[in-house]
Amino acid sequence: MVSREDGGLAARLVSGDVRALARSISIAEHDERAGWSLVGSVYSHTGRATLLGVTGPPGAGKSTLIGSLTRARRDAGRSVGVLSVDPSSPFTHGAVLGDRIRLVEHVLDDGVFIRSMATRGRLGGLAGAAFLATLLIDAAGYDDVMIETVGVGQAEVDIVDHADTVVLVLNPGSGDSIQAIKAGIMEIPAIIAVNKADHPQADELVRHVRASLSLAPRADDEWEVPVVRTRADRADGTGELLALVDEHRQHLADRGLLDARRSIRLRNETLALAADRFRRRLSSGAERAGVVREALEQVDAQQLDPSAAAERLLETLTVADGR
Amino acid sequence: MVSREDGGLAARLVSGDVRALARSISIAEHDERAGWSLVGSVYSHTGRATLLGVTGPPGAGKSTLIGSLTRARRDAGRSVGVLSVDPSSPFTHGAVLGDRIRLVEHVLDDGVFIRSMATRGRLGGLAGAAFLATLLIDAAGYDDVMIETVGVGQAEVDIVDHADTVVLVLNPGSGDSIQAIKAGIMEIPAIIAVNKADHPQADELVRHVRASLSLAPRADDEWEVPVVRTRADRADGTGELLALVDEHRQHLADRGLLDARRSIRLRNETLALAADRFRRRLSSGAERAGVVREALEQVDAQQLDPSAAAERLLETLTVADGR
Repeated sequence: MVSREDGGLAARLVSGDVRALARSISIAEHDERAGWSLVGSVYSHTGRATLLGVTGPPGAGKSTLIGSLTRARRDAGRSVGVLSVDPSSPFTHGAVLGDRIRLVEHVLDDGVFIRSMATRGRLGGLAGAAFLATLLIDAAGYDDVMIETVGVGQAEVDIVDHADTVVLVLNPGSGDSIQAIKAGIMEIPAIIAVNKADHPQADELVRHVRASLSLAPRADDEWEVPVVRTRADRADGTGELLALVDEHRQHLADRGLLDARRSIRLRNETLALAADRFRRRLSSGAERAGVVREALEQVDAQQLDPSAAAERLLETLTVADGR
Repeated sequence: MVSREDGGLAARLVSGDVRALARSISIAEHDERAGWSLVGSVYSHTGRATLLGVTGPPGAGKSTLIGSLTRARRDAGRSVGVLSVDPSSPFTHGAVLGDRIRLVEHVLDDGVFIRSMATRGRLGGLAGAAFLATLLIDAAGYDDVMIETVGVGQAEVDIVDHADTVVLVLNPGSGDSIQAIKAGIMEIPAIIAVNKADHPQADELVRHVRASLSLAPRADDEWEVPVVRTRADRADGTGELLALVDEHRQHLADRGLLDARRSIRLRNETLALAADRFRRRLSSGAERAGVVREALEQVDAQQLDPSAAAERLLETLTVADGR
């Protein structure tokens, strides 16, 4: 159901009204149901933006790089939406707030929309909210959506999973970058940018990255991960990086993988929503007499373990998909 | 269903066989279903251990503190299981591995069981595996289970949520500790330990923590969060901290909240398992003709948005709890 107010908001969002977009994302951030209702109204307008994920350890220069990528896209006449998401512990918030300052030059440009998200909700909530925001920015007509996350933990991976192309930014002389390589995250990105390429240890990091890549299993999409050197503060390497982003996108499109990835994202999101709502319904069922309450009481009394109880709930409360 | 082998393993675990416990946790870590099957066999033996959560930023001294808490519990004739969980980004793994070394003095003590978990599975997977491991250690008869996590992000909160009492460890002169306070995580712990109490900025941190606590909303359980100074390397303050842990436990028990918390944990875990298995069933349904595939095809074709599709799946594939 779309309320009259939501209907008006959706129409303004699709027409490219920045304030309607900002308000829509706030709604999606605080009330997933209302957010999905909005997305429902604008869903037919989605699927046109290119989605670029930018991730890497704190201090690698992600925001500066996004700043120069944004400038280059603007110079090419494209509009850009930037979504910065910080799902990690409160310990990194300071860094993220500092990073935002580097995007200031774009704040007054109508062709650039910048948004930060750092709400800590229930598990998975932020990745879901980021996905909603991405769909809304897409529906508002931005040509490119850049999704930035700090770090590369599971929550970040879930967020950049929403992108068609992921760039991992590493910086020389950083223990974090070496840890990232050791932890085997080389399988996540399509492109690796070694930023601060003027650093004395830049060559060493590039060699280290290439050696790790040579050991990593080849991805299903047959794309060979390139390593590009950048100096985001002077926009060095930005052109090369963007060319690689476009090349990767073309590579996926040629193999039908761009659509396939979009389908997988939408499928995962749909099934996650269904499961989440099933859980909420069970949760409200726990309050009144019925199968759910009975099973939970048996778990409490140690007559039934949680897994056996879950099986009983599934047996009793779901039907087979037999159409 | 419990296989003959699992049955033997479960019996050995309940009898306190350390190798059976270690093997059971490995099974639970890699195969949630098999882990739950094991827990099903030993479930009636759970619920006896005290569960203590220890969290805080990297470098705060959590492991050293757990080491001295373990020593004190051993001196009092109690057995201790320590579960160290690191769900955060690969950037912190090095620190955690280093921390483990501080528990070395207890490695040869039969009354102490030490286990690390750092598997990065699907979202929420680690919190679930940690819960399984906690139940298994409990069933093996350890009097105290200490659950350690690094950081205080959402994943960590989900893990320490399994504990009856949570201790937040902060250290003076650390930006991370200040960030933790600013981020309003003061509502999570039952007790705050200011470790490295000999540091010149220790008094300042204690004042800062107390000021923040005075602004925080009072918790439902009417417990006033105490701040204790510790020097874990010399075991200073350990006795006081343990007395507070025991006092908090008694406080909860007196109000019936210990059982209430346990019920909520088991309920949440049961409902999460049911929702997760519902999702897996939907996922396999997507492969064959039926309601799920049809809905996902319409999402793909932009005829239906993910939320509306999820509602349709719920309407079609679940029944009301009407017993």
